[in-house]
Amino acid sequence: MKNSKRKEMLQTVMWKEDSVFMIDQTKLPTRLVYVKCKKYEDVVNAIKNMVVRGAPAIGISAAFGLALAAKSSNARTRTKLMSDLCRAYEELRSTRPTAVNLFWGLDRVMGKAKTGKNLLEIKSGILSEAKKMAKEDIQTNMEMGINGAGLLYDGDTVMTHCNAGALATSAYGTALGVIRAAKDAGKLIRVIATETRPVMQGSRLTTYELHHDNIDVTLIPDTAVGHIMSRGQIKCVIVGADRILRSGHVFNKIGTYQIALMARFHKVPFYVAAPMSTFDFKSDLGDVPIEQRLEDEVLKIGKKRIAAKGVHAFNPAFDVTPPELISGIITERGVLTPPFNFRQESLVGKNEKIRTLKMKLSNPSII
Amino acid sequence: MKNSKRKEMLQTVMWKEDSVFMIDQTKLPTRLVYVKCKKYEDVVNAIKNMVVRGAPAIGISAAFGLALAAKSSNARTRTKLMSDLCRAYEELRSTRPTAVNLFWGLDRVMGKAKTGKNLLEIKSGILSEAKKMAKEDIQTNMEMGINGAGLLYDGDTVMTHCNAGALATSAYGTALGVIRAAKDAGKLIRVIATETRPVMQGSRLTTYELHHDNIDVTLIPDTAVGHIMSRGQIKCVIVGADRILRSGHVFNKIGTYQIALMARFHKVPFYVAAPMSTFDFKSDLGDVPIEQRLEDEVLKIGKKRIAAKGVHAFNPAFDVTPPELISGIITERGVLTPPFNFRQESLVGKNEKIRTLKMKLSNPSII
Repeated sequence: MKNSKRKEMLQTVMWKEDSVFMIDQTKLPTRLVYVKCKKYEDVVNAIKNMVVRGAPAIGISAAFGLALAAKSSNARTRTKLMSDLCRAYEELRSTRPTAVNLFWGLDRVMGKAKTGKNLLEIKSGILSEAKKMAKEDIQTNMEMGINGAGLLYDGDTVMTHCNAGALATSAYGTALGVIRAAKDAGKLIRVIATETRPVMQGSRLTTYELHHDNIDVTLIPDTAVGHIMSRGQIKCVIVGADRILRSGHVFNKIGTYQIALMARFHKVPFYVAAPMSTFDFKSDLGDVPIEQRLEDEVLKIGKKRIAAKGVHAFNPAFDVTPPELISGIITERGVLTPPFNFRQESLVGKNEKIRTLKMKLSNPSII
Repeated sequence: MKNSKRKEMLQTVMWKEDSVFMIDQTKLPTRLVYVKCKKYEDVVNAIKNMVVRGAPAIGISAAFGLALAAKSSNARTRTKLMSDLCRAYEELRSTRPTAVNLFWGLDRVMGKAKTGKNLLEIKSGILSEAKKMAKEDIQTNMEMGINGAGLLYDGDTVMTHCNAGALATSAYGTALGVIRAAKDAGKLIRVIATETRPVMQGSRLTTYELHHDNIDVTLIPDTAVGHIMSRGQIKCVIVGADRILRSGHVFNKIGTYQIALMARFHKVPFYVAAPMSTFDFKSDLGDVPIEQRLEDEVLKIGKKRIAAKGVHAFNPAFDVTPPELISGIITERGVLTPPFNFRQESLVGKNEKIRTLKMKLSNPSII
């Protein structure tokens, strides 16, 4: 059973034939095509152009990008190799500013590289670390799924925004991983997916991967969130995250904040599902840049201009949801409940599960 | 000055060459094309397919539709003519279920028809009544504009949703009429227009007509409303309405309710601009049908499918904003302020302006 499931699992990023293969997410849902990145510069472009997107998937792609840089380096000295790696590191790091997993993935691989004693050890160390991260990511998502599945009841209708699924990770997904785990536990879950303008990850990616896995999904325009909540049709919301601060502020796809606000007003629990690699224990709220993307994403659809000529658009890729609107953060270590005041030493490095107020959260009337 | 402005004014629906001419709004902003309706059936199709849309514009188009039905009737008796008119009336009435101006326009023209003593009098009475309504609509909008303009201050940034502009009326507009009037009064007003998925009236129509009139407009995705409000960038929201109940519940384009909710949370005044013809003094909340439109409007963009195959969508065209979220309703008779408990006799039929708590409303800190 498990094997047959794994065979079908969408794998978003992987190492094969000395290259990085990734699903070209700009082509979905029309075509499932893998692009082959032979050079780290290909990975840089893939991240910038959202061929690959989703915080964990970006982190792993960047790690593999460093492995490509190591592989193609002609350096004959350790110093030259590290300098080549640093250039690639900086370029990969500057592809997108908000999701913290990118920096986490790059730093983890560079940390490994620094421990290498010679060229061969550095090169093989980088590749094995990147592969390990990709594998760990799937394991992490499955643990997160099990931890979160207890929050969902048989027959629940769950709203999700953007795509925090297999396509945002190596495989299985964060928010959608929780839904997959609930389904695997025998619960019937229906999903309401928001379109998620302007890039439409909800329409294009979330409907694709849930339908692929036979999970009931209905698409709504972003304008219908409040209306559908007011009719009492949503039992809870689960979204992913691009960065979580120690204060509990969550940076995620534009539109997340307003969904959290509406969830609070309609007494619908609002959960965030994210691995520990999404936590940023150092930055304060004002330190985190919100990426502004090209206004053409709003003014055009495909190549066709929708808005009147001469008009400008405002296109922030992310927003911030404050901790007071969040009912719980689902991680591979357990479900974190408010009040949030995370310290790195209390969350990272221990092997035991974080104790959570799961009983409290499992009662949907308490948000 | 006034004349030169009127010359340029976008005229959405008009009677010319014994036909109804209307701007084909499905072609905007790419092309400004007028379609000619020679038969009332053409008007039926134009309303159904949203060639013409916007509550007041639909009401006037339907009135002209009855004039076309009268013109083309071969009836030789009063009874036969009235029967032909009744058939057209029923067909026009069933084009769209939510906006009340459609029924208002049809009933007003039919009321006039019934007073006609002979065929000629009925036919000419219908046409002159429809023409009168189109003319009155512009006058109404200008009065509404003057009444609402006092709520806006020089330098304000105003958010609007969907298109409640010239293109939703005969000309000048309701919500955008208020903005035009504020501009005419010498105030600099910046507009933030929401895209308004799925039909994108904000992207296609609001940006078009504001840019046409040299009013500063920036387009945002529907997902960015909460984010932009949280940054304190919006001074107030003005939207139109498709139907207003005596309780003050406002039916308007899907997405209006959630904008009102976010406005309340961020202490941003939320105004509705609508003529008295939008008021429904008879229906209760449960009586009003919310039109469900084809799911292809959400699943496809143009002819291209965006969502995965096999997936369904939920596509309600309207939602309901409760009176407690509304700071004021701007009408041609004055600005109505809460608490709302409208009675037909107190609002309709008097010539004097409704007394309003304008002073209270003019302080933006009070919402």
